[in-house]
Parts: sequence; C-alpha cells; structure tokens
Amino acid sequence: MPLALSAVHAPGIDDVVAAHHALRARRPLVQCLTNSVSTNFMANALLAAGASPAMVDNPEEAGLFAGIADAVLINLGTPTQAQVASMRLAAEAAQQAGKPWVLDPIAAGGLPWRGGIAAELLHFKPTAIRGNASEVIGLAGLGGGGKGVESSADPSAAVGAAVELLAHAATVSASGPVDHVVGDVAGRTMLIRIAGGSALLPRVTATGCALGALVAAYASVAPDALTGLVAAHVHFSVAAEMAEDLAKHPGSFAAAFIDALDSVDAGQLRARARIAAAEAL
Amino acid sequence: MPLALSAVHAPGIDDVVAAHHALRARRPLVQCLTNSVSTNFMANALLAAGASPAMVDNPEEAGLFAGIADAVLINLGTPTQAQVASMRLAAEAAQQAGKPWVLDPIAAGGLPWRGGIAAELLHFKPTAIRGNASEVIGLAGLGGGGKGVESSADPSAAVGAAVELLAHAATVSASGPVDHVVGDVAGRTMLIRIAGGSALLPRVTATGCALGALVAAYASVAPDALTGLVAAHVHFSVAAEMAEDLAKHPGSFAAAFIDALDSVDAGQLRARARIAAAEAL
Amino acid sequence: MPLALSAVHAPGIDDVVAAHHALRARRPLVQCLTNSVSTNFMANALLAAGASPAMVDNPEEAGLFAGIADAVLINLGTPTQAQVASMRLAAEAAQQAGKPWVLDPIAAGGLPWRGGIAAELLHFKPTAIRGNASEVIGLAGLGGGGKGVESSADPSAAVGAAVELLAHAATVSASGPVDHVVGDVAGRTMLIRIAGGSALLPRVTATGCALGALVAAYASVAPDALTGLVAAHVHFSVAAEMAEDLAKHPGSFAAAFIDALDSVDAGQLRARARIAAAEAL
Repeated sequence: MPLALSAVHAPGIDDVVAAHHALRARRPLVQCLTNSVSTNFMANALLAAGASPAMVDNPEEAGLFAGIADAVLINLGTPTQAQVASMRLAAEAAQQAGKPWVLDPIAAGGLPWRGGIAAELLHFKPTAIRGNASEVIGLAGLGGGGKGVESSADPSAAVGAAVELLAHAATVSASGPVDHVVGDVAGRTMLIRIAGGSALLPRVTATGCALGALVAAYASVAPDALTGLVAAHVHFSVAAEMAEDLAKHPGSFAAAFIDALDSVDAGQLRARARIAAAEAL
Repeated sequence: MPLALSAVHAPGIDDVVAAHHALRARRPLVQCLTNSVSTNFMANALLAAGASPAMVDNPEEAGLFAGIADAVLINLGTPTQAQVASMRLAAEAAQQAGKPWVLDPIAAGGLPWRGGIAAELLHFKPTAIRGNASEVIGLAGLGGGGKGVESSADPSAAVGAAVELLAHAATVSASGPVDHVVGDVAGRTMLIRIAGGSALLPRVTATGCALGALVAAYASVAPDALTGLVAAHVHFSVAAEMAEDLAKHPGSFAAAFIDALDSVDAGQLRARARIAAAEAL
Repeated sequence: MPLALSAVHAPGIDDVVAAHHALRARRPLVQCLTNSVSTNFMANALLAAGASPAMVDNPEEAGLFAGIADAVLINLGTPTQAQVASMRLAAEAAQQAGKPWVLDPIAAGGLPWRGGIAAELLHFKPTAIRGNASEVIGLAGLGGGGKGVESSADPSAAVGAAVELLAHAATVSASGPVDHVVGDVAGRTMLIRIAGGSALLPRVTATGCALGALVAAYASVAPDALTGLVAAHVHFSVAAEMAEDLAKHPGSFAAAFIDALDSVDAGQLRARARIAAAEAL
C-alpha cells in the first residue's frame, strides 16, 4: 500500500515563499564559472533576484573563492582548458566545505570532451543538476542528443534520466514548458512539476544558464536541496510570466524579465505559482 | 555590348522574402567563434532573427562542432591563442564538409598579428566576408587603416577591395550607411547596394558582429551565397529602421532592434527594403 | 593659516561641462582590458557617453594597441594568465607613450593572486585608480576586505586609503552613494565629493566597471587627471539620476541608463550635478 502523498512533505508554495524571503534577507554570494554568452545576463539575473554574483573562474583563485562564496555554479557552455581546471578546483572545494554547488551540463551528452568533464565533475556530488531535457538525458548516458544547447525533448521524457542521476546529485531538474524536478523526501523519490514560464524564455539566450545560477543561490538559503531547487524554478517561472504580460518580443522581454525577477514578491508567488508533487514512478 | 541587366538575375526582394521564410522554417544552427563583447548580443540577435546559436570555440570541440552546425561564423574581434586554433579547425572542417562559413575580419588591416590570422583563414575559402569599409580595404591589403573596430571609410570606397577579395571568398560585403555587397551572378560581378538601417546601429556595440552571424545563418538556407548575403543585410537593415521608429537612444534601441529582428515579416521586408543592383565596374 | 579654498581651483561644474564637450568632440579610443561580465555593457556605455571602445586584450596586440589608443582601462575582475600578461604590456606601453591609463582593482584586497598583480601594475603609475570603498581600502593594504566585487564599506571610510594611493596614482576615486575623489591641486590634496547617482546602479552588474572605462575616456580629453576623474563621475551620476526618473527596476534601468549617458547635455549636467570640494585632511 503506497504511502499517502499527504504524509510526505514535498516542497510547496509556503516553502517557496520562505526560501524567497531568505534569499532577499541573506543575499548569498554565488561564484559562477560559466560560459561567455551568459556572464552578464547571469550576473544581472542574480542581482535582480536578490543574490550577489562573482564570476571568479581562473585556476589561481577558483578553489579559494569557493570557500568564500555561499554557493557555486558550474556551467559547461563554452569551456576552456583553464576554466575546466578551475571547475575541478571549485567543485572539490565546495564539496569539502559543504557548500552547495550546481552543475549545468550544457551539451554534455552531445560533445565527448565536455561529456568527460561532466562525468568527472559528478564525482564531486553536485547539490543540483539543472539542464534541459536533452542535456539531462545526455548526461545520464541515455543518448538523447541535444541540438546544440537547445532542448529537443520534452521534460517529461527526461524524468527517468533525472532519477538515474540522483545517484550523483541530491536533486535534478529538467527545464521546459513544464519544469520537472526530482529529489528525495523522507526516503521517497518525488517528482515536482512547475508549470508557467513563458515561450519567450528560450528565445533569450542564457535564461537557462541564469536559472542554474539561481538554483545555486537558493540552495544556499533553503532548508534542503529540493526546496531550493523548487523555489528557484518557481521564482524564475513566475517572473517570466510577469514579464510576458508586458513584453511580446525577446529584446524587451529580456529587460522585463530582469525587472520581474526583482519585483516579484510573496503575493505574486502565491498568485501565480503552479506546483504539483507526486511520487516519481 | 554589355549584357542587359535584366538578363542577369541579381537577388531582389522576392529572393530575400523566400530566404527569410526558409530561415524561419529551418532555424539553422550557427556556430560562432566570436569576440568577448559580442557573444550575448550575437546569440540574442540570431535567436530573434530565427536561427539557433552555439558559441563552441575551444580547440577540443570546434572542428567537430563545425560538422554538426549548419554554418560557422568566425569573428576576429578579440582573438586568443586557443580561439585562433579553434578558428583554423572550424574553418577547415566547414570547408571540407561543404558548410558555409563567414569571416568578419575586425581590425585585420590595422593589427599585424590578426592580419596574419585573417590571411591564413582566407585559404579555407569563406562563403562570405563581412566587414566595415576600413576592414574590407585593410583585408584586401589596400591599407585603409581602421580606427579600432570602427569604419572610417565610406562603403563605396571599399568596392574595389571587395571585388579583389572575391579571389578568396564567394561574396563580400562592406557595411555602412549604405551596405555594399559584391558577388558573381552568371559570370558577372554584381554590386548590390542596400540602403536603410539606422544611425543608431553603430552606436550599439556588436551590431556589425551580429550581422556577420546572420550572414552565416542565411548562407545555410539561401539557394546561393549572394542571395544569403543580401537577405541578411536586408533583414538587418529593415529591423534597424523599425527599431528607430520606436527608440531614439542606444540603450532602448538595442532592445527594440532585437524585437524587430523577431517581428519583421514579409510585409515589412517588402515595404521597407531598398535594394539596388548594378554591375560592379 | 590654511590657504582659502577659493584660491585653489578644484574642478567644478564649468570644468565638467568643458570636458564633456571635449569628449563628444574628440570621441577618444579607449582600450579596455576588462572582465568577462563587463565587456558588452562597458562598450555600450563608452559608445553612449561619446567615446569609442576597443577590447584588445591579448598579449600579441595589447602593447601595440596601447600606443594607438587614446587611453587604457585595466580591470581585474576576471583575470586570466594571458590577460594579465596583456595588462603588463598595455600599462607599460601607456606609461611610456604618456597615455592615460586607469586601474580598476576589483577584489584585489581580498584575493592574493590578483592583489599581487594589482601591486605590480601600480609600478606603471596609473593616471587614476577607481574602485569601491572596499577595493580602495584593500588596495592600499589596509585590509578592508570586500565581499566579492561589492562594496561593504562607505566611501568616506576610504578617503585615507585613497590619499595613501596617491603615492602611486595621480588620482583615486571610491564610488558609492557619494563618490569620493582625491587628487592634488596646486600642491594641496583635495577631496571632491560627488553626490547623486541611483540606488539602482549597484543592482546592475558592470556599472562600476563601465565608470572605470569612462574615467579613462575623460582622462584623455580633460586638461588634467583630476578634472577628468571628476567629469566622468559627474557624467555617470547625472545619467543614473536621469535613468531613475524613468525606470524603477534593474532591467529597464540598464537600458535607460545607456540612453541617458547618450542624452545628457550641458544643461542636464548643470541642473543636476552636486560637486563639493574640500581639502583632504
């Protein structure tokens, strides 16, 4: 007889609102080792959402800084040899210091070199893995095959791969029209779906990357990894919906989205969030 | 007795509209090896226009990815040693796979190190060279001498240099208040001038770079290189004009321009395009 | 008996307006060796303000280009080994050619590797050092300790450190709610405070970095280093105030700020500038 869901406390809107409050109050410092396309937008997204970015990604400082930062984001979008060395140092330092860190495995399933780097980084046990469906499938070795950095699979198709990746990471999410988030709650693997967002999000570059950084920020202020991951997705999704109310094309949407990451409050979160939890089968 | 122009089919508005339709339908994947200033804006411009960007520019993956991508853009704005190695690999791979690739030779005429790189890359026979007038003149070895990355020469002054560069590239364009595009049609070297655009375009950084990437995108969907080059310039120019209708300063213009790259349709293209073809003398 | 202040000509609004006029008339070329977060925004800020950016930061060209540029900006935000080599070459070339150059010592007080680089670059005698209070204190060796790239100290607390740094640089500024600028006038060390700006400025990434680049631009057109530094701060501060009149959240503020860097004129400068000079004690 399966446990009734009501007996399992999966993160819900109250937890999201509390995490959002903690983010604004504590303003965590997030170290980002990320791709060249995303740096500016990611930093602005973090600042708007309520966190503090620092893009320290050279091998001379990356490990040291991971001990200073509240959380670390590692994004494989445009890796260089020096940056890869920094990623190893930062992931290791974060793990050793007990700091949360997030892996965004862009195109890791489709390109062998970065696939090897991603596999190696998994040894440092990320707090969360965030990708689109193709990337989550690719990382789990199921051969989903993304077209560049874009998702060509529906997030619901990535749930099996996401659950498989829980062997390496505390939580995993696959972004898309409905975000699919998995993690354990009281020994049970839960699937939490977050609807909303905007069709304009994938029309603006680095929005997924910025979400990965926001996941890192929330991981450092939430009571557990799954709550942090859900809160980041909800904050992002609600802000995108608010932005789409004001802007219908990607240039103005990008600015409106940054505005909304800033202006979203508990009332907006409660009014707009669409979170559904179930046991992952 | 010269052949009547009517007998030579130079690309016109019908060809531009058809190429634009093909771009939206096929959404080509464009690999961009570009300067650090342009990455984010270029990716957003490609996404808005209807293509799909991927900034894979490390030597470990650049050649492989050129075989996956539909087109390659190589921009010399801020080259690093590793990126230059990647450029060689990507250009060679594109040439061997028969994929179109575009060279944007920023400041190649004024700085000897990158001048040597540009000269070397010409061996891989770019589908198109896109630069401002100074850069086209500089690349052709005529000593135009740009001030940094900016044009200090009128595009009409670069036509001779552009024609000379047809020894290395299928097509060449010099951007400016009136863009000047050259290429062969049925054995005759044609000059196509595209008027329009906006005086705000050069006040926003990386707009020229983004045009280079759009040229690569169009080259992969148009029936021939010259049609692709003309279509990219017209799409860009019409979008800039639409943006200037809404924004009078560079910050808001940049967002309005991305919006217009997205919203421009066949009707706007037909209403606003100003294309004039003649034989290059 | 102290010299009356009226006898010392500290830069005032007339000097700022004249420098602004010179910037627009001469449009100086500013070479920027800067962090990966700031490149695009910095280039757009320079273009909007009236200067011309060029991000030449590879060791093969950096020294040569410093001889071509009108001014050089060196920002330590995300240094790489190659970029650090370029910084040495550019600073040395600028010093030898008598070109102004500006040091922005991001987090130099908190991270030993870049702290060593900053100390070394001081040997090339920057025209101006621009940082937030923590960075100015950190650079002077007083151990202020910044949290990442953000200021956690009030600029007034950095005046002692700024004066100390005049042993290495012609002028020094600490940015914040009220910018504090120090430099010598007729043998006396003056402190000039510039009020205004916007609380949204630190909510947009790379605004401080862009100010550093604008300081370099003004240094190349102003009659002396202190006038250039004050003019850059006033231009920036007035534009931020104008932007805040139109935008209340960071995404739209960023675009409005670029617009205002462009649209600000002598009338706006005179109406809004708040400059107070005193002897630094």
